[in-house]
Amino acid sequence: MDAISVIRAKRDAQELTPEQIDWVVDAYTRGEVAHEQMSALAMAIYLNGMSRVEVARWTAAMIASGERMDFAALGVPTADKHSTGGVGDKITLPLAPLVAACGAAVPQLSGRGLGHTGGTLDKLEAIPGWRASLSNERMMGVLRDVGSVICAAGDGLAPADKRLYALRDVTGTVESIPLIASSIMSKKIAEGTGSLVLDVKVGSGAFMKSLDQARELASTMVELGTDHGLRTVALLTDMSTPLGNTAGNALEVREAVEVLAGGGPADVVELTLALAREMLDAAGLPDADPAKALADGSAMDHWRRMITAQGGDPDAALPVAREQHVVHAAADGLLAALDAYAVGLAAWRLGAGRARQGEAVQAGAGVELHAKPGERVTKGQPLLTLHTDTPEKLPYALEALDGGVLITPPETEYRTTPIVLERVG
Amino acid sequence: MDAISVIRAKRDAQELTPEQIDWVVDAYTRGEVAHEQMSALAMAIYLNGMSRVEVARWTAAMIASGERMDFAALGVPTADKHSTGGVGDKITLPLAPLVAACGAAVPQLSGRGLGHTGGTLDKLEAIPGWRASLSNERMMGVLRDVGSVICAAGDGLAPADKRLYALRDVTGTVESIPLIASSIMSKKIAEGTGSLVLDVKVGSGAFMKSLDQARELASTMVELGTDHGLRTVALLTDMSTPLGNTAGNALEVREAVEVLAGGGPADVVELTLALAREMLDAAGLPDADPAKALADGSAMDHWRRMITAQGGDPDAALPVAREQHVVHAAADGLLAALDAYAVGLAAWRLGAGRARQGEAVQAGAGVELHAKPGERVTKGQPLLTLHTDTPEKLPYALEALDGGVLITPPETEYRTTPIVLERVG
Repeated sequence: MDAISVIRAKRDAQELTPEQIDWVVDAYTRGEVAHEQMSALAMAIYLNGMSRVEVARWTAAMIASGERMDFAALGVPTADKHSTGGVGDKITLPLAPLVAACGAAVPQLSGRGLGHTGGTLDKLEAIPGWRASLSNERMMGVLRDVGSVICAAGDGLAPADKRLYALRDVTGTVESIPLIASSIMSKKIAEGTGSLVLDVKVGSGAFMKSLDQARELASTMVELGTDHGLRTVALLTDMSTPLGNTAGNALEVREAVEVLAGGGPADVVELTLALAREMLDAAGLPDADPAKALADGSAMDHWRRMITAQGGDPDAALPVAREQHVVHAAADGLLAALDAYAVGLAAWRLGAGRARQGEAVQAGAGVELHAKPGERVTKGQPLLTLHTDTPEKLPYALEALDGGVLITPPETEYRTTPIVLERVG
Repeated sequence: MDAISVIRAKRDAQELTPEQIDWVVDAYTRGEVAHEQMSALAMAIYLNGMSRVEVARWTAAMIASGERMDFAALGVPTADKHSTGGVGDKITLPLAPLVAACGAAVPQLSGRGLGHTGGTLDKLEAIPGWRASLSNERMMGVLRDVGSVICAAGDGLAPADKRLYALRDVTGTVESIPLIASSIMSKKIAEGTGSLVLDVKVGSGAFMKSLDQARELASTMVELGTDHGLRTVALLTDMSTPLGNTAGNALEVREAVEVLAGGGPADVVELTLALAREMLDAAGLPDADPAKALADGSAMDHWRRMITAQGGDPDAALPVAREQHVVHAAADGLLAALDAYAVGLAAWRLGAGRARQGEAVQAGAGVELHAKPGERVTKGQPLLTLHTDTPEKLPYALEALDGGVLITPPETEYRTTPIVLERVG
């Protein structure tokens, strides 16, 4: 077995054999297959695809490259959620303590943002004292004591995926359905959760721009999870405009806390409850009532205990950016569109995101929305507030927003898009 | 400009802009674009192709990555030949001194073998004392004094190609017409020869398996040369069976010397003369008579002077392998086929070639043919002699030959294939 013959097979649009897949994933993890060989293979996979059988084997090989966790000792059902990434997607923050308050354990291994999409860990790190990195033992401890934990995945889980993810990021091979599906599912299966709800984003602010692509990704992942004995469902959800009224780290934490306090923007509440119900269903707790847990303060109580258990102070003031700049409505009319990608890119340029792995992010930076698509606006009213510690970047953020805000005549009809577009599984 | 946007453009089957091509070739030469990024781009080029405009710009960018030589000071026309590589292809050895004897200067920058195809420098190194590496000054000196020189290209010529060639070799991206054409032509144009004859091999022992592929490669290269003011023609020649009666380093030198002495196998003589006539035509010497230069000993005289000028002893005994193994005809009949790839692979496994760049080769190893396709053979007569210093490899060489020798009933009709199949240019 050698790397060149495996690359050639996929280059020539052949189906890789189980032996080829096992060998190449293992040899890449060990460093025997070089980065430049794996990147040629990744491009061949991008362009020639993989069959369901190949994706299943590839995922299994990535799981086998590292350790597997097991939550059976907890004695309660476990449920996890994964989002494919969007703008203003702070859902994990209220969702994890909410589902824990309803009786399922939520072992939420999360990631950091890259490019225009934010990352859950970056958001929580805006809370003074909060730590993303926990040992496996500490993670299990928080999960047992609080019922939910949000932390970084340890290095031992699917190390093949870690290497490959970093490589794809610099070689233009990110947006491949077989590679995305196997990357997400290898980590989630290795993590050992008993059930999984996938939030597959569709629209300008998501990796999947069309419903067809999102459907294919969702069904690939649901099949992979099911084949590994993991109860898996997927919701296809709208990402044409940002979720809620904020995109940025501290800004989104503030909004998540509003939701946990029983308020918050309607779309964030709706999606949080929809995902909570799916997680509780999948975990075998169909009678739990997440709306009640939001209303009676038990979700907020779990949030405070979870933040405290990871070193954070839930009562501390959140960081605020040094400068604010207000964008006003240019005309009277209907706010017909507020593009998710434009807002995400602006937030990134303001300092909320990073261009390369390992860079620091600004806790206070981001974009605040004062109106949502479908609302009437008046010329001169505040539409957006841009927050940043680096005001010299403001022109670039404004450039990103150019064309992303659409105001049409007041009489224009507006069709509301539901947040949840489809369910797969 | 960044590597990811260039990779994505080609991945999405867009035509690269001149600016993108110039930037990515230059940045790769400087190490700013990483190997894993260039290999993803090479795979995207392999699968999505490049237009003639792109190939021309890519070639120009590789030329611009290094120095250019100039033979104008010699005051005589220059002609060079390049073969795309085959089995038993020792033609450069008699050809260079032959064309020099007819009045053109031949600055022959050659390569080493990789895989089943031999390399001119490896062959000449079988001659005791002969050195492949010359300084530019020494090279010019030999060219001026003798009229021909065969040596390794200096590191300064098309360094982008050097990096890319080594990368393609390990990433399954060798057999791409745009990448092969730009690799060959960037070196030849930078080398500064006034005219160039391309020997594009077609058949099992060549990179191009079909006449259509070979035609496309040939016309791409002729166009690139012509666009750069280089008189360029290509011959498409048969590589379904080895050239001559030997494949291996010292074995092929011996055969080349036979040709220079006025003898040698008919196919080697025919192709040497055909290429010599094309080179002399392209160099503006259409009245030269290469057949006479072979017959009157002047080509041999140039050979002896060329070898001597590079430290070699033209009278020294050539190395002989430690062990010989004879393969006999299995039946009476017509030798209908003796597959070039099978013989090349056997010679490689016997030690005549290398698996990785930088490995040593055995001077004496290789395969000697005692019959050629179209000849009648008798059961038990010697068909091949295998030469090696590592007899433990004999079983693997015999395995390579399995199915490569076809003996049909004596009455089978045999259609002779001409050596030169087509001319392009």
